Amino acid sequence: MKNIDLSVVKNTIRVRPNDSYKGTYGKVGLIGGNTNFGGAIIMATEAALNSGAGLITTLTDPVNLTSLHDHAPEAMFANYNDDSELEKLIPTFNVIVIGPGLGTNKNSLKIISKVFKLVNNKQILVIDSSAITMINQYDLTLPDNQIIFTPHQMEWQRLSGIKISDQNEDNNMKVVNKLDSIVVLKSHHTEIYNKEKVFKNPGGTPAQATGGMGDTLAGMIGGFVAQFSNEYNAVLSAVFLHSAIADELAKNQYVVLPTHIIQRIPEFMKKYEKKG
Amino acid sequence: MKNIDLSVVKNTIRVRPNDSYKGTYGKVGLIGGNTNFGGAIIMATEAALNSGAGLITTLTDPVNLTSLHDHAPEAMFANYNDDSELEKLIPTFNVIVIGPGLGTNKNSLKIISKVFKLVNNKQILVIDSSAITMINQYDLTLPDNQIIFTPHQMEWQRLSGIKISDQNEDNNMKVVNKLDSIVVLKSHHTEIYNKEKVFKNPGGTPAQATGGMGDTLAGMIGGFVAQFSNEYNAVLSAVFLHSAIADELAKNQYVVLPTHIIQRIPEFMKKYEKKG
Amino acid sequence: MKNIDLSVVKNTIRVRPNDSYKGTYGKVGLIGGNTNFGGAIIMATEAALNSGAGLITTLTDPVNLTSLHDHAPEAMFANYNDDSELEKLIPTFNVIVIGPGLGTNKNSLKIISKVFKLVNNKQILVIDSSAITMINQYDLTLPDNQIIFTPHQMEWQRLSGIKISDQNEDNNMKVVNKLDSIVVLKSHHTEIYNKEKVFKNPGGTPAQATGGMGDTLAGMIGGFVAQFSNEYNAVLSAVFLHSAIADELAKNQYVVLPTHIIQRIPEFMKKYEKKG
Amino acid sequence: MKNIDLSVVKNTIRVRPNDSYKGTYGKVGLIGGNTNFGGAIIMATEAALNSGAGLITTLTDPVNLTSLHDHAPEAMFANYNDDSELEKLIPTFNVIVIGPGLGTNKNSLKIISKVFKLVNNKQILVIDSSAITMINQYDLTLPDNQIIFTPHQMEWQRLSGIKISDQNEDNNMKVVNKLDSIVVLKSHHTEIYNKEKVFKNPGGTPAQATGGMGDTLAGMIGGFVAQFSNEYNAVLSAVFLHSAIADELAKNQYVVLPTHIIQRIPEFMKKYEKKG
Repeated sequence: MKNIDLSVVKNTIRVRPNDSYKGTYGKVGLIGGNTNFGGAIIMATEAALNSGAGLITTLTDPVNLTSLHDHAPEAMFANYNDDSELEKLIPTFNVIVIGPGLGTNKNSLKIISKVFKLVNNKQILVIDSSAITMINQYDLTLPDNQIIFTPHQMEWQRLSGIKISDQNEDNNMKVVNKLDSIVVLKSHHTEIYNKEKVFKNPGGTPAQATGGMGDTLAGMIGGFVAQFSNEYNAVLSAVFLHSAIADELAKNQYVVLPTHIIQRIPEFMKKYEKKG
Repeated sequence: MKNIDLSVVKNTIRVRPNDSYKGTYGKVGLIGGNTNFGGAIIMATEAALNSGAGLITTLTDPVNLTSLHDHAPEAMFANYNDDSELEKLIPTFNVIVIGPGLGTNKNSLKIISKVFKLVNNKQILVIDSSAITMINQYDLTLPDNQIIFTPHQMEWQRLSGIKISDQNEDNNMKVVNKLDSIVVLKSHHTEIYNKEKVFKNPGGTPAQATGGMGDTLAGMIGGFVAQFSNEYNAVLSAVFLHSAIADELAKNQYVVLPTHIIQRIPEFMKKYEKKG
Repeated sequence: MKNIDLSVVKNTIRVRPNDSYKGTYGKVGLIGGNTNFGGAIIMATEAALNSGAGLITTLTDPVNLTSLHDHAPEAMFANYNDDSELEKLIPTFNVIVIGPGLGTNKNSLKIISKVFKLVNNKQILVIDSSAITMINQYDLTLPDNQIIFTPHQMEWQRLSGIKISDQNEDNNMKVVNKLDSIVVLKSHHTEIYNKEKVFKNPGGTPAQATGGMGDTLAGMIGGFVAQFSNEYNAVLSAVFLHSAIADELAKNQYVVLPTHIIQRIPEFMKKYEKKG
Repeated sequence: MKNIDLSVVKNTIRVRPNDSYKGTYGKVGLIGGNTNFGGAIIMATEAALNSGAGLITTLTDPVNLTSLHDHAPEAMFANYNDDSELEKLIPTFNVIVIGPGLGTNKNSLKIISKVFKLVNNKQILVIDSSAITMINQYDLTLPDNQIIFTPHQMEWQRLSGIKISDQNEDNNMKVVNKLDSIVVLKSHHTEIYNKEKVFKNPGGTPAQATGGMGDTLAGMIGGFVAQFSNEYNAVLSAVFLHSAIADELAKNQYVVLPTHIIQRIPEFMKKYEKKG
């Protein structure tokens, strides 16, 4: 399996055209954060924001409103338990990230089901974490969208039916083909599949081994696909950059937290921006 | 159309007199931030604060109280749904910024109508965002104040009746003359009109293309007109500085967020302060 | 009037003895922060904390609990509307700072009256802002404590009966003698009176002309008198340092906010610590 | 009594294996933070997080939810008054830190009793602060776990029955043997006992003499024992590093706050990581 090529990253992170405005960089909706896991959707939001998404709305439990504004006043809030809010907002997004901190209980199910009904097939869905678990747990029918799944190995087992010990390129690719999706299989060296190709992320450090890393990556992916037109390359670039930042910070830190990575995204995107 | 002249900026940001105190730099009231868009009024508040306004009160929905204090403990809070608070406070301000995150529903209408009734004609109004939309939407009568409008192109279309494709200097100037106001028409190169003149902002970067930039600019304008006596020059200076900061940060950041700009205002005002 | 002597500051900020612990540096209670002015008591708390007070409890309206913990998790919270909390806590403090953001309404009066009843004469009181106003407004009897008043000129007029235009050294000293207190008369060059002496603060910059500066100074004074045994010298040192930090920051900032000053207190105390 | 040996610290903070993941570094539950002392459990949480614990859940009063997410979005929240939450979560932790800001009232007693019933003997307990006081106050039976106590001298008197004036190595060791636990006796030079050995911490500075230092240390200990297999050496290393950071910061700060220390943990762990 080939490593992600740095030239893909550099070609993806284009110099922004001068006459662009916030509408150029997409409207991202992030859905998650129940009463226990509010931090997850907040980190995903901050990651999408620092990645350059044009407009961000976070749909979460109202207990998370203040923390959301504290971390990311640039993001708008909506109550994910309010059906009329979902009905009004969901159709307005280019990209929807669902899963971080959403949980898997009846209320989580109600929300994901509602969202899957409301999406239209021009929207890109990033499905992460508990949202992946629920697809299997409640036997949900996937909407007919461009979907990016971001499972860790156990979640991939649930979604694909492939046991962790059997998760190799050939087996994974068969399921990816059936899903007709992009799959970001998170592990020490994360693998990124689409129907045609698979690349491995060369970076990553054990200093990152902390809760919240996946939420942060999901948010970055949301931010990247919202602004870069080739989705697969956008995902490759987000995965690459997420660990490139961690690797750099790990030179001086025994522990690299998601919030550390988030703060450095704008600077690292600049470093990898295509020049000339 | 001429660019904003750096000498205007330098002549506006005067060296503060030694015997001045907080009363010298104005009382600014900022009104906005509903239950969905609290971050907007918080960013506007922080921008006014970092621009050097003497005393700041933020009138917003109570759900935003904690975030307001978290971001800007220097600002005072009032409940914008409490009529007696509005009646007591509105007459005390030199400058009122209305619009960031206010929304356009019935409650937003109730608040803007109340504010327009309570203002006296010595006060400067900065009317931004959803407040501009409501003027057209509900056919509101403008109060007889020095008004600074800060529309983006679609909001200007609503306010002026000029379609975006027809928004040129001549057409805009006719409406500005009728409005007898300062108009900050936000776009890639923002144009700033008053009855006599128009200047174009030379700066600005696509790295800034994120939600919240306008709220931040509205707050800066509020802070600048509160302390500098020539309102038109104060507006020119705020617009210039807002993008000058972004341009500088964009050298090392692919994305420049409103909160990044806000933090650097005190330092950049010092750089452009008139010396000698 | 002589300027505060740098040697006083250096002799006050002693090298801490090795075998000291948090009890050595005093228990400070800060009382204030109503539903409108929560930021004031939060800034006072942070200032006391960064000045090195050993243990801090902030008695405020419950709406401010989260912001208090967000800014200063080291501080403990109590509900200032809960009489049993006041009765339990007030006797435990060495220093009480009352006033920042307390307001002057009936509830504010109820709290200050309760506090004045509960104090014992070994405690030092720092009386600031609205607490000063209420003494005059409601004709409160001052408790028999070492009191430090921190009025600005209008508050001093209310407390002393001396009109601002008549506030000179002789007139002020007569009232200070009657009050038998330390008075910090805040203005461009703040004057600090006790029964025997008066000094003028040489520093201070118009960059500081923002709401919240007084709250911050009150908190610093609370922190300084909690740990340094000569109260008058502790007050002189707090006043001096507060503006020395601002003067330094003003070299590179057009605006210096209270929160900017607060963050630099530990570093500046180190600079002025007595060596050798 | 010998000082903690730097080589112990360096041998404990191992280079993380490349193929590790967040599960490798433990699940830590932190329990505390009532309506008055929320900051304590928040600082403990941040300390555990910055020390590298894999997954963190904080069980606290719901009033602290927002502050928890504001300081540490990486941590999950649970309501410590919800019995079903305790029953579900307690068995999932490798390490439980109980005490910071828990208080000693009837509700605190209810929680600690419940926790002591729910733990299984494979879990490490860090018992701090008010939890130590309650053991004596309510004559609680200790569960049969590896326990790390972190008392200051008065708490140790309560737990051990040894008056502060009689707290010497011989007397302490007898009680430690009976308790069959690790005891971190906090004072100017903290002493760390287990059944066989005792070491003294060489570092520590009076600049640290502020409320919250103990909560921070308890959190660090929780984070260290969650990831390093020799518990006694992990505790020695946490104690050593906590004051090593403070000593370094105290070179330029008169006051070193818990939150200052917390932010530097990842960098200092890297400095002391075993190389080669």
